[in-house]
Amino acid sequence: MAVSTQLLNFLTELLGEKGVRTEADDFLPDIILKPSSTEQVSEILKLCDAAGQALIPIGGKSGLAQGIHKTGDELGLSLERMNAVEEIDVHNRTMTVQAGCILQVAVEACEEEGLLLPMDFGARGSATVGGTVATNAGGNRVIRYGMMRDMVLGLEVVLADGTVVSSLNKMIKNNTGYDLKQLFIGAEGTLGVVTRVVVRLRPLAKSQNTALLAVPDFPALINLLHYLDSSAGGTLSAFEVMWPEYYEFITRDGSNHTPPLPHGSAYYVLVETLGANAETDAYSFENMLGQAMEEALFEDAVLAKSQSERNAIWEIRDDVLELFNLGPIIPYDISVTLDQMEEFVGELKAAMADIEDSICIIFGHLGDCNLHTILGSKNPEAFDPKALGELLYGIIAHYEGSISAEHGIGLSKRDYLHCSRSEEELALMRRIKLMMDPNNILNPNKVLAAEDVAALNN
Amino acid sequence: MAVSTQLLNFLTELLGEKGVRTEADDFLPDIILKPSSTEQVSEILKLCDAAGQALIPIGGKSGLAQGIHKTGDELGLSLERMNAVEEIDVHNRTMTVQAGCILQVAVEACEEEGLLLPMDFGARGSATVGGTVATNAGGNRVIRYGMMRDMVLGLEVVLADGTVVSSLNKMIKNNTGYDLKQLFIGAEGTLGVVTRVVVRLRPLAKSQNTALLAVPDFPALINLLHYLDSSAGGTLSAFEVMWPEYYEFITRDGSNHTPPLPHGSAYYVLVETLGANAETDAYSFENMLGQAMEEALFEDAVLAKSQSERNAIWEIRDDVLELFNLGPIIPYDISVTLDQMEEFVGELKAAMADIEDSICIIFGHLGDCNLHTILGSKNPEAFDPKALGELLYGIIAHYEGSISAEHGIGLSKRDYLHCSRSEEELALMRRIKLMMDPNNILNPNKVLAAEDVAALNN
Repeated sequence: MAVSTQLLNFLTELLGEKGVRTEADDFLPDIILKPSSTEQVSEILKLCDAAGQALIPIGGKSGLAQGIHKTGDELGLSLERMNAVEEIDVHNRTMTVQAGCILQVAVEACEEEGLLLPMDFGARGSATVGGTVATNAGGNRVIRYGMMRDMVLGLEVVLADGTVVSSLNKMIKNNTGYDLKQLFIGAEGTLGVVTRVVVRLRPLAKSQNTALLAVPDFPALINLLHYLDSSAGGTLSAFEVMWPEYYEFITRDGSNHTPPLPHGSAYYVLVETLGANAETDAYSFENMLGQAMEEALFEDAVLAKSQSERNAIWEIRDDVLELFNLGPIIPYDISVTLDQMEEFVGELKAAMADIEDSICIIFGHLGDCNLHTILGSKNPEAFDPKALGELLYGIIAHYEGSISAEHGIGLSKRDYLHCSRSEEELALMRRIKLMMDPNNILNPNKVLAAEDVAALNN
Repeated sequence: MAVSTQLLNFLTELLGEKGVRTEADDFLPDIILKPSSTEQVSEILKLCDAAGQALIPIGGKSGLAQGIHKTGDELGLSLERMNAVEEIDVHNRTMTVQAGCILQVAVEACEEEGLLLPMDFGARGSATVGGTVATNAGGNRVIRYGMMRDMVLGLEVVLADGTVVSSLNKMIKNNTGYDLKQLFIGAEGTLGVVTRVVVRLRPLAKSQNTALLAVPDFPALINLLHYLDSSAGGTLSAFEVMWPEYYEFITRDGSNHTPPLPHGSAYYVLVETLGANAETDAYSFENMLGQAMEEALFEDAVLAKSQSERNAIWEIRDDVLELFNLGPIIPYDISVTLDQMEEFVGELKAAMADIEDSICIIFGHLGDCNLHTILGSKNPEAFDPKALGELLYGIIAHYEGSISAEHGIGLSKRDYLHCSRSEEELALMRRIKLMMDPNNILNPNKVLAAEDVAALNN
């Protein structure tokens, strides 16, 4: 079914030529609507709901779960023209921002007021605040500040029928009935379109201390995490672990990076604290690490003594694109509890070792139970992403882990959702989707299959 | 309509004599069911849903919003026999606990393992973990650790039709579809019955530093909050403000308390940090307060030098029952943004001053925007709680504040919910209630009026 010409005429009349753009694309919708106000979003949804025309809300296109891929003749709905920072409220330490604002723009606007929007991940320069809400983004500082869900105080959302639900709350405590915003955070645009966001801000840190540690074995790794979490008194903001396959490839001879620590250790951990006292925090940090060394929680360490040394360490952790030089790969994003993590990784590595030319590289946000798991093949012809996904998700299901820690479900993980969620949970999700979007116009087929939702009506 | 004898016979057969107790009560249900397992809860709900018999989930009876008051012939459903601490997982720093467990029992069980369940409020000795989830409890440490919603990682819930939805997740990051647990947290038992909870634990603090400060005016109060929030580097765990009417009455001549600071200041603030270093934190705390004094953010201070001095300060903050000696009062619980708080309090005090013999006393968790507002009359015959509530909520609506910061809506605030929520928000709440509980058996008439929910069907 193609998009109705009559509907497109109505939409062009509503949005003007500038607001309806056509661009043929193999994966994304060909026609993108670009409203400039919440009222226009509401009108678009009213028209599309009445016509049964599906829409895909599009943010910064940085998602990793095919959350904006078309599955039929969906229209795209981009909020890129609704990108204003509307208010930074220094009294209440909140920001009110339109959903299309780029995350980095929002973060920098807060910094100018001496405040911290603590959401940070690689795609900060392209991801939008609305997309960050829709996917409940995580990133590098979850261990201290939580995920996007934990930072959102209020939302303005447009429902499938065009109703605008404005809950632009700025108060930290507000127990007045159901917390509606939770429905839309992490729902990947399937239950409503987020148009405005109120985010809680924090004071900007006055000190940043960073180290790279080499750790001899997994029990030491867990003890180190617990030790630092207890000793840093609330300031621990990163505990990023690299398995040796990651660290040694990224810092190999001829790479762009000099290894700050020699190869050969079992784990490499980037540790960071964000503190309040520029004078004393460096000393406390060194002291804390000194005690951890005495307790044999790590075997070697390098402390960043300058911003450029700090950047050099983070660049090793962030240089994920370098892994594509190994061959075709897929970056998976899973969680597993800490007590089972070592066994899980062992089982996965063993299974991958049985596959000729396989690639299996692991790193991630260990403090959050979250491992980025890169699977692929050095032989492009043997690369079978479907088989790799099924292998990984089968093991994850066995360990009752999560098939998506922070990237979301989208289209690419939808058919594996049952590996992490029970039939009762899936049934309840489908009921929610059917109630919120009875004509299935909001990002259909993402998270849940349209046919499974429709089956509830029979 | 009385409870059907046939249904009661079925329930007695299911639960045994011990599981069905009758006790006449003016406010609470007369017949209380006491299941001993999730399976029994599921069977109860199946039977009641089929019979159209309403139920009120009952926790520790410490709520302040008439959340468990009967509005007809509801049965009570107490989970007091499901009170086990099932697991404290020191690797993953989680606790799995049955909903009927008393909060204080849960907190102490964690402490024995060196871990902190950071939920703390006055009724800790009677409130249950399940009730704490159902009301999204707040309390004294929200400024640092968030509300109950922020601590819950997983839930097991029984839906109205008896379906058990088990989402006992232990992982910090788990973006696999809709975050179903959010529906039940803070829904006051109207959308499902919480039977098991997984809570995130934190390391136990190694230092606690407490002070009482006298602050000259409201701008200094806000500056002090922001200064401490920035300077304490994530360790600030309480910022409890007492208006002078509160402090001076509680520490008056002949009271149980010696005033640690003289009467006559504009505000009194209890400040506390929970830190990681018993040796250096006391010095840092004094140093931080010394700088705040230099910047004239307060005019007088006393630091607790022992646990008994700390207790003496907290006992002043916690001695809310003493206020009942003033006359009949109602403890309201509201939020308002910090930039409007001074004006709001001024308007409220002025309105109350116009009422003869009125009582108006304010204190609260200022860092969370949350004020406990005690209104009443020194003349019992002139005490008109309905008029006082309407006066307060009218002013709150004008300031776009919250009529319930942490106590919930229950029955007592239900008819004022529109003061804090828009018609679109209320309509969406009703749709959710109707979908989740089509026969309206789960705590009917709480949060939303049954007739308003039923009207959606017409």
